[in-house]
Amino acid sequence: MRDAYIIGAGQTDFGSFPNRSYRSMFHEAFEATRESVESDVDPDDIEEAFVGMVGIGGRQIGLAGPGATSHLGLNGISTVRLENACASGGFAVRQAIQAIRSGMADLVLAGGVEMMNDMSSDAAKYWFGVSGEMEWERMAGTTFSGVFAQMASAHMEAHGTTKRHLSQIAVKSHAYGANNPHAQLGFECSLDQALTAPDVAAPLNLYHCCPMSDGAATVLIASEDVVDQYTDRPVRVAGVGASTDGIGLFERDTYTSIPASKDAAAEAYAEAGFEDPIEALDFAEVHDCFSIAELMAYEDLGFCEPGDGGEFIESGQPTPDGALPINTSGGLKSKGHPIGATGTGQVVEAFKQLTGRAGDRQIDAPKRGLCHNMGGSGGAVTVHVFERPDGEVSA
Amino acid sequence: MRDAYIIGAGQTDFGSFPNRSYRSMFHEAFEATRESVESDVDPDDIEEAFVGMVGIGGRQIGLAGPGATSHLGLNGISTVRLENACASGGFAVRQAIQAIRSGMADLVLAGGVEMMNDMSSDAAKYWFGVSGEMEWERMAGTTFSGVFAQMASAHMEAHGTTKRHLSQIAVKSHAYGANNPHAQLGFECSLDQALTAPDVAAPLNLYHCCPMSDGAATVLIASEDVVDQYTDRPVRVAGVGASTDGIGLFERDTYTSIPASKDAAAEAYAEAGFEDPIEALDFAEVHDCFSIAELMAYEDLGFCEPGDGGEFIESGQPTPDGALPINTSGGLKSKGHPIGATGTGQVVEAFKQLTGRAGDRQIDAPKRGLCHNMGGSGGAVTVHVFERPDGEVSA
Repeated sequence: MRDAYIIGAGQTDFGSFPNRSYRSMFHEAFEATRESVESDVDPDDIEEAFVGMVGIGGRQIGLAGPGATSHLGLNGISTVRLENACASGGFAVRQAIQAIRSGMADLVLAGGVEMMNDMSSDAAKYWFGVSGEMEWERMAGTTFSGVFAQMASAHMEAHGTTKRHLSQIAVKSHAYGANNPHAQLGFECSLDQALTAPDVAAPLNLYHCCPMSDGAATVLIASEDVVDQYTDRPVRVAGVGASTDGIGLFERDTYTSIPASKDAAAEAYAEAGFEDPIEALDFAEVHDCFSIAELMAYEDLGFCEPGDGGEFIESGQPTPDGALPINTSGGLKSKGHPIGATGTGQVVEAFKQLTGRAGDRQIDAPKRGLCHNMGGSGGAVTVHVFERPDGEVSA
Repeated sequence: MRDAYIIGAGQTDFGSFPNRSYRSMFHEAFEATRESVESDVDPDDIEEAFVGMVGIGGRQIGLAGPGATSHLGLNGISTVRLENACASGGFAVRQAIQAIRSGMADLVLAGGVEMMNDMSSDAAKYWFGVSGEMEWERMAGTTFSGVFAQMASAHMEAHGTTKRHLSQIAVKSHAYGANNPHAQLGFECSLDQALTAPDVAAPLNLYHCCPMSDGAATVLIASEDVVDQYTDRPVRVAGVGASTDGIGLFERDTYTSIPASKDAAAEAYAEAGFEDPIEALDFAEVHDCFSIAELMAYEDLGFCEPGDGGEFIESGQPTPDGALPINTSGGLKSKGHPIGATGTGQVVEAFKQLTGRAGDRQIDAPKRGLCHNMGGSGGAVTVHVFERPDGEVSA
C-alpha cells in the first residue's frame, strides 16, 4: 500500500457563528489549510474530497459535501459526505487515506464542518438526538448527557472513579485550551469551579460536558509519489484503525469501556508497529465529549490499565509534565465540538504539534501522536497515528 | 490497482412498508445478497461496509450505517454512512470498490436503505427538500419536481422535446417494471394514461415522476485475490466514474444537461476502455427520478447526440428491440426510488442481467452494462461499467 502524508491542515475558530454559512466556514478552513502548505497548492490538483458533516442545525444537509467543495471551485471531482455522528471527521480522514492507498488519487481533501447553533428549523431542534440510537434509546427519553452519565455512574461504582477525577480532566483541558486561539472556551478553570458547577445529568455537571459549536477544519493528504512537490515537513500516516459497534449503549456488554475504541487502537498500533502507546507516543488528542469519555479513552487506548483512568489523571500523566500530554488543543471540552469537524480538527492539532506550529502549547519536538475520534456513545471510532518521517527535525 | 468483482447482490421489495425498521429491511437485502452468492459467505469475512442513506423519514439517521451493519452481526469493522442525496448508493458502491483497490480489504459490503414513508416526525416532513440546495433554492420555495420541471421546459424550448417523449419513457419503464417482482409500481401503463395524468409540476405529470419508496439493496464486492473462493460467475468492475457540481441548478451554465453525468461517464468509459457506449454496452440502468432526467441521461451518457433524446425514445432505442435496453428493472419510475438504496438497487439489476437471473426481463446473454446514479438535481453522479469476465458464458 502506498504511503499517505498530511501536507497541510487548518481550521476556523470554533464557537457560535449563527450568521455564517457552512460554505464560508468550510472555505475559511480550506484557505487556512492551503496557507499551511509550504508550496502553493493548485486546487485543480485535488482529485477527491471527503466531507464529514452530521447536518445538525445547518440549513444544508443533503449534498452538503459537494455543496462545500463546489464553493471552493472543486467541481468535477468525487466528493462525498460521510456521517458517523461525532466521528464523521475521523472517518473522512480515514477514507481520504484509503483513496490515496487505492491509487485512484494523489491529493485528497478531508474536511469537516458543522453549524450547530442555527436552530431555526424544526428539524434542527429534533436533529441532535438523532445521532443516538433512536428506536430504543432516544424515543424512551434518553439524551447524550444521560447516556454518558450512565457510563460515569457505572465507572464510579466499578472502579471508584470520582467527580474529582472528572473535574481534574476539565481543569487540564481548559489549561491547554487557554493557549489555543481557536478555542471556543479558551479560558482556565479551577478545580473548585469544575467540582461545583450545576449538574447537567448527574454525576456530570457543566464542566464535564463539551459545548455546542460551529466550525470547520480541513486536511490535505498526499501520496508518497507527490508529497515532495508540496513540503519537506510532511506528517506520515503511520497507522489507521476504525471500528464500529452497536449504536445503542444497551446493545453492549459493558458500560465502563468502549469496545470500538479498543479495536480501532489495536488496528492502528499494529500498523504503526508498536505495542506500548505510552512509550511510542508523544501526545494524543482523544474524544472528550464528556469528561468520562476522556477517562475511558485513557483505558481503552491502553494509556493505563482498565479501571485506572482516575489514577491516571490524578497523577498528572496527561498534563504537560506527565507521561503523555492529552488534548493539548483543549479537546472537545475547551476547544469545542462542531461534531462533523471535530475529527479533522484533531488532525489539525496533530499536524501543528508535529511541525512545530502549536504556539504556546507546543510540546518539545514530538515525533509521534495519536487522534481518537468517537461517534455517538461508541458506535463508531477511528484511531490514527501520525509521525514525522524518520530523521526529520521539527521546525 | 487490484480488480474488484461483484459476487452477489440482492434487495427487498421496493414499496411502502411503514411498519418495518431500517434494520430489518437492510437485513432482508443482505440475506438475499448472501443467497445470490454461489458459495457460503461467512459474515466474519466482511472487512468493511459502506451504507448509502439520506435519512429522510426513517427514525435513525446518525450512525445509521453502523446501526444497520451491527444488526447483521458485523461489529468490529469499519462501517460508514455515505450521503450524496439520491446518489448515496452509487457512492457506496464506488467507495467499496476503492476499499478493495486500496488493499485494505478483500470483501466489502456496499448497501443502501431508505424508509421514506415514515413521516411521523416533524424532521421527516422537513427532510426531503434538504437534499436540494437549501440556502437559495428550497428556501425560495422550489421543490424537486419544480427543479426538474424547469429542466424539462428548457429542454422542450431548446430541442423540441415533447410531453409525448416523456410519456413514452414512462410507458417503456412500466413495461419493464411489470416483469420485476420487486417493483413498487409493477404494472403497465398506456401512452394515453401517461399523457393525460394530472400535473405535478407542469410540464411534468404524475407519470413523469417516480414514487416515494421504502427499500434496501446490498452488494458484496470481492478483490481479485479472493473472488474465486465465492463464485465462478463473478461480475467484473470494468470502469468507475464519479463527479460533482454545484448543487443548485442556478449554479450551472446549462439547464438542459447534467455536466457531472458527462464527467462521470467519460471517466468510467476511459477506464473500461471504450468510446462508443452504444457499441460497448448491452444494457443500462439510468437515474430517472423524473422522465426528463432519463431523457437527459441518454444525451449526457453519449447514447445519442445532445438534443436528440426525444428522437432516441421515439425510435424505440431503449426498448427490448432497440439498440440499448434501458432501465430493464423498471427504473426509479416503476421499480421505485428509496433514495439511499437506489444506486445499489441498480447494481442488483446489473448483477442479475449479467448472471442470467433477470427472469422475464432477461436480456439475451449481455456482456456489459452500465449503472448511472444521480444526486439531487445533478450535484453528484456515479457511473459504473460492469462486465462478465472475458470468455465467461452467462448461465
